[in-house]
Amino acid sequence: MFFFCLLSVFIRVHLWFHKAFELLSREASMTTHKTARDLSQFLAAQLDGDPSLPISGLASPESAGHADLIYVDSSRHLDRAAASAARCVLLPPDLSLPGKTLLRSPQPKLAFAKAAAWLLPAAPIATGIHPTAVISPTARLASGVAVGPYAVIEDDVSIAEGTQIAAFCFLGRGSRLGAHCRLYPRVTLYAGVRLGNRVLVHSGAVIGSDGFGYVTGEGKHLKFPQLGSVEIADDVEIGANSTLDRGSLSTTRLDSGVKLDNLVHVAHNVRIGANTLIAAQTGISGSSVIGNNVVIGGQVGIADHCTLEDACVAGAQAGIPTGKTIRSGQVVWGTPARPLDKFKEAYAWFARLPELAARLRAIEQKLP
Amino acid sequence: MFFFCLLSVFIRVHLWFHKAFELLSREASMTTHKTARDLSQFLAAQLDGDPSLPISGLASPESAGHADLIYVDSSRHLDRAAASAARCVLLPPDLSLPGKTLLRSPQPKLAFAKAAAWLLPAAPIATGIHPTAVISPTARLASGVAVGPYAVIEDDVSIAEGTQIAAFCFLGRGSRLGAHCRLYPRVTLYAGVRLGNRVLVHSGAVIGSDGFGYVTGEGKHLKFPQLGSVEIADDVEIGANSTLDRGSLSTTRLDSGVKLDNLVHVAHNVRIGANTLIAAQTGISGSSVIGNNVVIGGQVGIADHCTLEDACVAGAQAGIPTGKTIRSGQVVWGTPARPLDKFKEAYAWFARLPELAARLRAIEQKLP
Amino acid sequence: MFFFCLLSVFIRVHLWFHKAFELLSREASMTTHKTARDLSQFLAAQLDGDPSLPISGLASPESAGHADLIYVDSSRHLDRAAASAARCVLLPPDLSLPGKTLLRSPQPKLAFAKAAAWLLPAAPIATGIHPTAVISPTARLASGVAVGPYAVIEDDVSIAEGTQIAAFCFLGRGSRLGAHCRLYPRVTLYAGVRLGNRVLVHSGAVIGSDGFGYVTGEGKHLKFPQLGSVEIADDVEIGANSTLDRGSLSTTRLDSGVKLDNLVHVAHNVRIGANTLIAAQTGISGSSVIGNNVVIGGQVGIADHCTLEDACVAGAQAGIPTGKTIRSGQVVWGTPARPLDKFKEAYAWFARLPELAARLRAIEQKLP
Repeated sequence: MFFFCLLSVFIRVHLWFHKAFELLSREASMTTHKTARDLSQFLAAQLDGDPSLPISGLASPESAGHADLIYVDSSRHLDRAAASAARCVLLPPDLSLPGKTLLRSPQPKLAFAKAAAWLLPAAPIATGIHPTAVISPTARLASGVAVGPYAVIEDDVSIAEGTQIAAFCFLGRGSRLGAHCRLYPRVTLYAGVRLGNRVLVHSGAVIGSDGFGYVTGEGKHLKFPQLGSVEIADDVEIGANSTLDRGSLSTTRLDSGVKLDNLVHVAHNVRIGANTLIAAQTGISGSSVIGNNVVIGGQVGIADHCTLEDACVAGAQAGIPTGKTIRSGQVVWGTPARPLDKFKEAYAWFARLPELAARLRAIEQKLP
Repeated sequence: MFFFCLLSVFIRVHLWFHKAFELLSREASMTTHKTARDLSQFLAAQLDGDPSLPISGLASPESAGHADLIYVDSSRHLDRAAASAARCVLLPPDLSLPGKTLLRSPQPKLAFAKAAAWLLPAAPIATGIHPTAVISPTARLASGVAVGPYAVIEDDVSIAEGTQIAAFCFLGRGSRLGAHCRLYPRVTLYAGVRLGNRVLVHSGAVIGSDGFGYVTGEGKHLKFPQLGSVEIADDVEIGANSTLDRGSLSTTRLDSGVKLDNLVHVAHNVRIGANTLIAAQTGISGSSVIGNNVVIGGQVGIADHCTLEDACVAGAQAGIPTGKTIRSGQVVWGTPARPLDKFKEAYAWFARLPELAARLRAIEQKLP
Repeated sequence: MFFFCLLSVFIRVHLWFHKAFELLSREASMTTHKTARDLSQFLAAQLDGDPSLPISGLASPESAGHADLIYVDSSRHLDRAAASAARCVLLPPDLSLPGKTLLRSPQPKLAFAKAAAWLLPAAPIATGIHPTAVISPTARLASGVAVGPYAVIEDDVSIAEGTQIAAFCFLGRGSRLGAHCRLYPRVTLYAGVRLGNRVLVHSGAVIGSDGFGYVTGEGKHLKFPQLGSVEIADDVEIGANSTLDRGSLSTTRLDSGVKLDNLVHVAHNVRIGANTLIAAQTGISGSSVIGNNVVIGGQVGIADHCTLEDACVAGAQAGIPTGKTIRSGQVVWGTPARPLDKFKEAYAWFARLPELAARLRAIEQKLP
C-alpha cells in the first residue's frame, strides 16, 4: 500500500510540474497579434493595401487561411496566390495581384523566412529543469537553461544562457554548449564536445563518437587513439541521426552556419567551412577539408584527405576519391567525380554506346 | 541512511512492477497448442498426413525441430525439407514429400507468414503503464495502451487502444497515434505527428524533424519555415534509425502499407503511395511524389520534385535527378537513372570500351 | 510543500551518487606516471635517449606538449616531428632525429596505438549501478558490471564481468553480453541479442530490429517471420547509429574483430567474417556472406545473397548485384562492381567518349 502511495506522489509531482510547464508554454506560444503594417516595417517591405490586416500565421497558397501570409517569387505562381484565401501576399516589386494586400520585397522568399521566425518563434522543447534530469553537481547551467525529462548531464558540463536540452539528451563529461542552442530529444554528446551559440541538433544525432581508425598488425585491428574532440561553431544545424566523430589526434570542426541534413556522416579530423550545406546521407571520410559556402548534394561520398575548396558543388551521389581536390567554384558529378558538363556529355555518349558500337561494326564490315 | 531507505523503496517498487509485468508477459507468451488440422483450417490448406500433429513454432528446414512448421516453395528445396527434423511442411499443390505431414497451399510462403503471425504473435514491448513514464495530464490514452519505462508523452497526445510504446519513446505535443501501433524503444515523434493503426516503428526512428530548407541571403542560410506535419497511414512499418521530416508548409505523407527499411531518409513534403517498398539507406528529397506499389532498392537517391508513378521500380543505388518522372511500371537503374535494359546494355559496352577504342584505332591506322 | 521536499530528497540522492561516481572516476583517470624506459619495455622498442623522460599523453606532432609521445612512420614526416614540442618520438629503426629521445619500432604506428591503450585507458562510461536504472530481478549482472542512469535491462538478461552499460541503453529480454563490453549511451539491443567479450557499441546503434522481409499477396505486404537473432563475437566495434537486423529464420552473425563504422546497415541473416572492416554508410542486404579480412569502403551497397570471399576489397560506393560472388583477394569498384583495374580503364575511356565519338564520325565521313 505504501508503495502505491509513494508512486502516486511521484506521479502527482510529475503532473504538477507538467501543469506548470503547460501554462508557461501556452504563454510562450501566445503570439502577439501582428498587422500588415507591422510586417512591412519589420521586413522593410513596401506595403500596398490594408495596413491593419491582421496576420497570425504563414502558409502555402493552397493551405492558407485569411490571416496567413503567403509569398510568390515568380509570375508563374501568381495564379496560385490569386486563388488563395490569404489576404496578404509577399511578392517581388515588379509583380502585382489585384484584391490582395501586397508586401513588396526584392527577395520575397527570404522575407517570408524572416517573417516566419518573427511571427512564429520556435516552441520551447524544454521548460525549466525537469526533476527527473540527472545533472552532475559540477555542471554549470546558466540562467534560463531548460532541461527536459530524463536528460543526463555529466560532470563539468557548462551550458550558456537560454539553451534548451530536450528529453533523453546525454551531455558527456566536460562538454560545453553556447547560448540559445536547441538539442532535440535524445541527442548524444560524447565527452568534451563543444557547441557554439544557437546550434540546433535534431533528434538522434551523435556527436563525438570514436573515429573509424585502426592499425592492423599481429593479425588484428588495434584501435588508433581517438583522443581529439569536436568543435561546432555558431548557427550550425545538424540533422536527425547524423553522426560526427571526434578527432583522432586533432579536432573535427564545423565552422559557423554549416547546415547538415539527416543521416550525414562526418569522420574524424574533418573540417567544414562556414555556411557549407550538406544534404542527407552524405559521408565525409577522415581528414578531408571542406571550404566555405560549399554545396554537397545527398548521398555524396567524400573519401579521406580530400579538399573541397570554397563554393564548389558536388552533385548528389558523386564520389570523390582519396586525396582529390575540387577547385573553388567547380561543379562535379559522378563516381569518380568529374566536372559536371564533362560528366553529362560523357554520360550522354554512354547512353549511345550501343549505337556507337554498331556504327563501328558497320565500318569494320566495309573495310577490307 | 534515509536516502538509502528511500532508494531501496524506489527500487523495490520497480522490482514489484517488474514481477507483475513478467507474469503478464509469460501469460501472453503461453501459446495455445495448435495441430496440423488447426493450421490447415486457418490457412485453408489441404491436409495430407497426421491431423493431430502438434505444431508450436516455425523454422527453416535446417534449424527446425519436430514441432516446427517449415515451407518449400519450389522443387529445388524439396531435399532440404526432406532432410529436416520438421514433421509438417507447407508446400505447393503439385509437390509431395513422403513421410511428412503436408499442408498444400498455392502460395506456401504467404501461408507460412500467416501461420507465423497466428502461431507466434509478437511479444509485447510494453505492458501496463510503467511508473517512470512521464505522461502529461492532458494526454489521452485509450484502454489497453501500454507505456514502457522512461517514455515521455507530452501535452495533448492521443493514443488509441492497444498501442504499445516502448522505453525511451518521446511523443511530442499533440501527436496522435492510432490503435495497435508498436513503437520500439527510443522512437521520437516531434510535435503534431500522426500515425494510423497498426503502425510499427523501429528503434531510433525520428519522425517529424525539421526539413532541410533554407533561404540564402545576406551571407547566410535562414531557415525556411518547417511548419507542416507528418501523416502516416495504417499498416506502415518504419525501419530502425530512419528519419522522416515534417512538411515545410504542407504535409509529409505515407499511405497505408508503406514499408521503409532501416536508415531511410524521407524529406519534407514527400508523399509515398500505398504499399510502396523502400529498401535501406534510400533517400527521397523534398516534395517528391512516389506512387502506389513502387519498389525502391537500397541506397537509391531521389532528388527533389521527382515523380515515381505507380508500380515502377528503381534498382539499388539508382539516382533520379531533380524533377524527373519515372513512368508507371518502368524499371530504372544507374545515375542518372535510365530504363534497366538500356542501362545494362550500355554498361556492357562500357566494360568493352578499351576494346572499342582499340578497334577504332585499328581502323584509323588502316585509313589514309 | 511536501512535493518539493520529496523532490529535493530525490535530487540530493542523485547528487550524492554523483559525488561518489566522480571520486571513483577521478581515481580511474589518475594515470600512473610512465617514463620513456617504461614505454620502451612495454613496446619492446629500442630506446635511444633519456630513459627517465616522463610521458603522460599522446598527440600529433603539431599539438604535442613536452610530455606527449608522437610517432613518425616515414621520412616524409621527420620535419614535423623535429619541429614538435614532444621530446619522445616513436619511429622506424632506419630513421633518426637529433635532440629527441627515440623509441625505435618496426611498426611505429602500431606501437603508438598500443602505447595509447596502455597510457590512456578508456574513461569509464558508467560506474556502479545507477539508482535510476530499471533492472529486472531476473537479470544476472556479474561483478564489476556498471549501469548508467536510466538504462533499462529486461528479464533474463545476463551480463558478464566488467561490462559497462551507459545511460539510456535498452537491453531486451534474454540478451546476453560478454565481459568488458562498452555500450555507449542509448544503444538498443532487441530481445535475444548476444554479444561476445570486449564488444564496443557506439551511441544510437540498434541491434536486433526486424529484417525487411515481406510476402506480397492479396494486395498487401505481410511480414515474413523475423524470428532469428543476432550474434556478435569478441572484439567487434559497431559505429554510431548503425543498424543490425535479426535473422529471419537463422542468425545474423559477426565474427570476432569485425569493425563497423557509423550508419552501416546489416540486414537479416548476413554473416561477416573475422576482422572484416566496413566503412560508414555501407549497406549489406539479406543473406549475404562476407568473408574474413574483407575491406569494404564507405557507401558500398551489397545486394542480397552475395558472397564476398576472404580478403577481397570493395571500393567506396561500389554496388554488388544480387547473388554475385567477389573472389578472394579481388578488388572491385563501380556499380555494378567490376575488377578495379578494369573499372578504371573503362572509366578513363568513358571520360574520352566525346573524343571517341568524334573520331568515329570523322571516319564515317571519310568512307563512301
